[in-house]
Amino acid sequence: MKAWRLASDRPLEGVHDAKLGIALHEEPAPTPGSGEVLLRLRASSLNFVDLVTLNGFIRNAGMVPLLDGAGEIAAVGPGVTRWKVGDRVIANAQQSWLAGELTPESYGHVLAGTMDGMLREQAVLAEAGLVAIPEHLSFEEAATLPCAALTAWSSLVRHGPLLPGQTVLVQGSGGVSVFALQLARCFGARAIATTSSAAKAERLTRLGADAIVNYVENPAWGRRVRELTGGRGVDLVVEVGGAGTLRQSLHSLRPGGRLALIGVLSGMGSVPFADLFPIIQQAHTVYGVSMGSCADLANLARAMALHGLRPVVDRVFPFDQAPEAYRYFASRAHVGKVVIGV
Amino acid sequence: MKAWRLASDRPLEGVHDAKLGIALHEEPAPTPGSGEVLLRLRASSLNFVDLVTLNGFIRNAGMVPLLDGAGEIAAVGPGVTRWKVGDRVIANAQQSWLAGELTPESYGHVLAGTMDGMLREQAVLAEAGLVAIPEHLSFEEAATLPCAALTAWSSLVRHGPLLPGQTVLVQGSGGVSVFALQLARCFGARAIATTSSAAKAERLTRLGADAIVNYVENPAWGRRVRELTGGRGVDLVVEVGGAGTLRQSLHSLRPGGRLALIGVLSGMGSVPFADLFPIIQQAHTVYGVSMGSCADLANLARAMALHGLRPVVDRVFPFDQAPEAYRYFASRAHVGKVVIGV
Amino acid sequence: MKAWRLASDRPLEGVHDAKLGIALHEEPAPTPGSGEVLLRLRASSLNFVDLVTLNGFIRNAGMVPLLDGAGEIAAVGPGVTRWKVGDRVIANAQQSWLAGELTPESYGHVLAGTMDGMLREQAVLAEAGLVAIPEHLSFEEAATLPCAALTAWSSLVRHGPLLPGQTVLVQGSGGVSVFALQLARCFGARAIATTSSAAKAERLTRLGADAIVNYVENPAWGRRVRELTGGRGVDLVVEVGGAGTLRQSLHSLRPGGRLALIGVLSGMGSVPFADLFPIIQQAHTVYGVSMGSCADLANLARAMALHGLRPVVDRVFPFDQAPEAYRYFASRAHVGKVVIGV
Amino acid sequence: MKAWRLASDRPLEGVHDAKLGIALHEEPAPTPGSGEVLLRLRASSLNFVDLVTLNGFIRNAGMVPLLDGAGEIAAVGPGVTRWKVGDRVIANAQQSWLAGELTPESYGHVLAGTMDGMLREQAVLAEAGLVAIPEHLSFEEAATLPCAALTAWSSLVRHGPLLPGQTVLVQGSGGVSVFALQLARCFGARAIATTSSAAKAERLTRLGADAIVNYVENPAWGRRVRELTGGRGVDLVVEVGGAGTLRQSLHSLRPGGRLALIGVLSGMGSVPFADLFPIIQQAHTVYGVSMGSCADLANLARAMALHGLRPVVDRVFPFDQAPEAYRYFASRAHVGKVVIGV
Repeated sequence: MKAWRLASDRPLEGVHDAKLGIALHEEPAPTPGSGEVLLRLRASSLNFVDLVTLNGFIRNAGMVPLLDGAGEIAAVGPGVTRWKVGDRVIANAQQSWLAGELTPESYGHVLAGTMDGMLREQAVLAEAGLVAIPEHLSFEEAATLPCAALTAWSSLVRHGPLLPGQTVLVQGSGGVSVFALQLARCFGARAIATTSSAAKAERLTRLGADAIVNYVENPAWGRRVRELTGGRGVDLVVEVGGAGTLRQSLHSLRPGGRLALIGVLSGMGSVPFADLFPIIQQAHTVYGVSMGSCADLANLARAMALHGLRPVVDRVFPFDQAPEAYRYFASRAHVGKVVIGV
Repeated sequence: MKAWRLASDRPLEGVHDAKLGIALHEEPAPTPGSGEVLLRLRASSLNFVDLVTLNGFIRNAGMVPLLDGAGEIAAVGPGVTRWKVGDRVIANAQQSWLAGELTPESYGHVLAGTMDGMLREQAVLAEAGLVAIPEHLSFEEAATLPCAALTAWSSLVRHGPLLPGQTVLVQGSGGVSVFALQLARCFGARAIATTSSAAKAERLTRLGADAIVNYVENPAWGRRVRELTGGRGVDLVVEVGGAGTLRQSLHSLRPGGRLALIGVLSGMGSVPFADLFPIIQQAHTVYGVSMGSCADLANLARAMALHGLRPVVDRVFPFDQAPEAYRYFASRAHVGKVVIGV
Repeated sequence: MKAWRLASDRPLEGVHDAKLGIALHEEPAPTPGSGEVLLRLRASSLNFVDLVTLNGFIRNAGMVPLLDGAGEIAAVGPGVTRWKVGDRVIANAQQSWLAGELTPESYGHVLAGTMDGMLREQAVLAEAGLVAIPEHLSFEEAATLPCAALTAWSSLVRHGPLLPGQTVLVQGSGGVSVFALQLARCFGARAIATTSSAAKAERLTRLGADAIVNYVENPAWGRRVRELTGGRGVDLVVEVGGAGTLRQSLHSLRPGGRLALIGVLSGMGSVPFADLFPIIQQAHTVYGVSMGSCADLANLARAMALHGLRPVVDRVFPFDQAPEAYRYFASRAHVGKVVIGV
Repeated sequence: MKAWRLASDRPLEGVHDAKLGIALHEEPAPTPGSGEVLLRLRASSLNFVDLVTLNGFIRNAGMVPLLDGAGEIAAVGPGVTRWKVGDRVIANAQQSWLAGELTPESYGHVLAGTMDGMLREQAVLAEAGLVAIPEHLSFEEAATLPCAALTAWSSLVRHGPLLPGQTVLVQGSGGVSVFALQLARCFGARAIATTSSAAKAERLTRLGADAIVNYVENPAWGRRVRELTGGRGVDLVVEVGGAGTLRQSLHSLRPGGRLALIGVLSGMGSVPFADLFPIIQQAHTVYGVSMGSCADLANLARAMALHGLRPVVDRVFPFDQAPEAYRYFASRAHVGKVVIGV
């Protein structure tokens, strides 16, 4: 079977600051042991972290990249009870985190982190680390769930699910934000989205945003968001911006509000502690979110199935054009997810 | 101002087993003190417990009946900050239960229980015990929220809100069940309803039921419900039946499922402990629900506002025909809520 | 290696209603696969459910019995990261329930239920289903944790840990109740214990009970418990009695209180629904508890380690005298746990 | 009756940066209305926020200062059911926050914030905003609970109570930290304390610290804390330092750990976002804590009563020497709480 692996000798051209590249290998097919299955991969998808990986800060040359993978069961090992050959499944990136809150014990095997990732034709995985693909989704669509969609889902449910009638703030048009916007409607919640242009505003409205705030026109957009909630403040912020947005995000929140800290798209600058002070005064809760457990992924899949929710897939590259997929993704020309078929 | 009060000398005719009646009184208008408001009541509604009250087991002759009330602020006492004259509000029946879980401390002042109820023209109440009426609702519609709708809401959120994609089982066409059905959709959940006839089945489907189980045709309807969830079982049961339905309800539940215990419409018989055994084996959670806190009522109002949800009002009686309203309600001829205008 | 297995041809003498017996077998030693370890068992312990198993209602003739097991790692399979040879570990009976609430997904592999139990010299188990033995405990003591102690722990933490200053009610001197009593003190809580004799009362006081209620002298002991809390009611009941005690237990509870439903020692009779009515009126929560997740077991082990808590072991039988251990346990002559060394 | 009020015309001498002073007034005694009580104050205590108030940034000249107050009921208004004349009570600073999480609705009346504080002989308050003083505490001791002790308690229970066997990190010898240390033992938890000197280390050990880390000797003290937990990391940090300590605090935390953000004793500098990055990677939860609800205060009082816990009172000043009390407190010469008798 074929597998792409991170290669230290030839940096991927066309990807800014890349120290590593990827190289295709022909390898022996693996065999599932007790409680394991052989997964025939059919699609994988790219996330921001996969570009960071190419920077080489984390020493993982030789490893199969990509956290996202979907495919079908090709064989089952002894004692497997959940799956049979032909079942369509997604692999959860955090293979050891089956359920509950993250603990040191559940913080173990991570795809493309502590173990080989999904950019290969076949993989042997424990049966408990997989979740059934909703029937209405293709492999390409399903491959976008484990990282971006699950992060969005976890943001909305950790420390208590968003209630119908509550308001959530999402930022921009990135993968997690778009999923959060789509999912917010499944929770019966109201979504306010920030953006930088009228064109994107229109698209966010079509995806379900109840109100839009242009952060270029309103540098102090926190106040505008607050006005849109009648002065009360939003119940939850899905924060993907980091240092550049945190101040306005906290200004948008109601007393006792929640902020899911996910990304640093606006950079890694410094935050004056005074900006964090509302956390104390207004008893906010700030929680980091990085994907979720297998139980979370199963809950997400059930919600998407009932609501017929479809991920936005920008483009699908064939397996042998994986380097092109990386380059296209790095160019930021895409809208929605970039997928690699396997 | 006028007020109806429970009267021990003349049982209400046309209500089965009634030991008490109601009598109209002319009384001096009350004045709000510090932190209090004068509420000009505009509508009240009837609940099953109001018929039980007429049985006279609870010694409350002389008390103003009815838990449900909606109206507008007519005057505010010193120090009141939340309301101004003209604001449209609902009174929460459990006036001392502002937020959080029920405790002995929050289990104090209850309308039509430990203090006068809502079947009167004016009432003085603490400002914290009121919630704003959603704009799209009339007083008559709003008056149906504090008891039936809040009980349904609390059933869906206590011990963690229902998740989108989860399945809830509701029983029959009573007030709480119909609200639970309507609200389940706001949570993005799937609802299965039990009923006894094809006519009611059609109506429940129109109200949002995804599937219907006829419990007359299927005495072992728990199995049928389980089949409708692919064998998994429902995540939550809103149990209004009591002794006659508990066994099948528990049979419908998934491992780790929840059952909100609300009513005893099917009677107060005995339950073989063997029927309760699945609670232990499958780690179920059974919780009693009887209305909720003011914070819960405010959350419910926000959800109904965002979703434009309207209660089903069967008929509105004028204030001076309150006895007729009781009789009509006791006849069970209604579909939806019976309201008394004030 | 040697293993005892349930045998259908010769019922165990001296155990009431036994339809099955146990027979010793010599079997090939198993080999751990990927992510698995070979556990050299050193002790197992008996629980009430092991007597029920001998009744043969559940078809498991041929299976190795006993849920409780402790031992040391004898070998590790490929990819095992948590354990090394020589580590002392306990096996969690619910092998698939790693963390979080019980779900259909976590309700899979159960020792002595869906897979072979612990009354054998060696077992191959997944590395995630094991927890380190606290240093101060022997194998014999550690073997008492997975069933009785974990059930007691789960009773105190499910739906929110018991708070310091709160009061818990425990019933009698059985395994779960004694552990609940010992653990309540670790939570900084007050414990009230029911019992039938002055001799047992003294022993329960030594184990940490703050107050004792004799249920023989006080058939309406719920009222007495309530008095001992100044009329407020206890915050939590650890219910092991079932049909015969539920009424008084619910009478002991404060509004909004919790009742952990564990056992049916007082029988499987019928419960008048009127006895359950306080659940609705006072917004109680009743939850079934049957052991817990691996994460729960790890939390319990940490608590026992910090507090130097030791299980009460009545007697240890050698491996080849397992039938005698069953008979002794069935005679109810023991105080504390009955252990079988391996 | 006498009351001290903030005075803008003469800054309090001996308090750094004070723009305001305090002046004694003779005023008419207030009368309780419906649901209100007249509180005869007997003691108040000083907190860091009371010095900040003197800076005059918040426009509250004319207001009675101090959040902390304890006294006895001198009279009850109509409809009061919880208290009778002579009852000893503490006032909760957040008078509108009765229970549950903080919301805009519960974020209303705050002593010494939106309404007069406790440095006076008499006050009229709503009956629901008071909590009974544990019997073993004097008025002077009880007056230290509403601000410092309640903040410590809330830190340990918000988002789920600390479990027995878990480890909490407390910083230094300030009021909240000392209470958190004392309370951690009531939860059956292990406490690690940071400090700057051997003398303080000894005192913290006597108060219950299981391990001490000198942050002067170990500038990278997060690593040392982690070693003291066997590499696992602590479960909870009670963060009073702010910008100067956050980095090491987060380094001390286990994956999925919690950090209660309370104070900024180490200053209001800037925090590099990179220091916050572990919140994302390790799914930490950071929550602001500023006192708590009345239900929290009642829970704290119950825990202190059962454990006989006593606050550390450094010195008690008579009512007419309130300015001296401020000066002494501002000098930081105290160890424990500074109290003003009334």
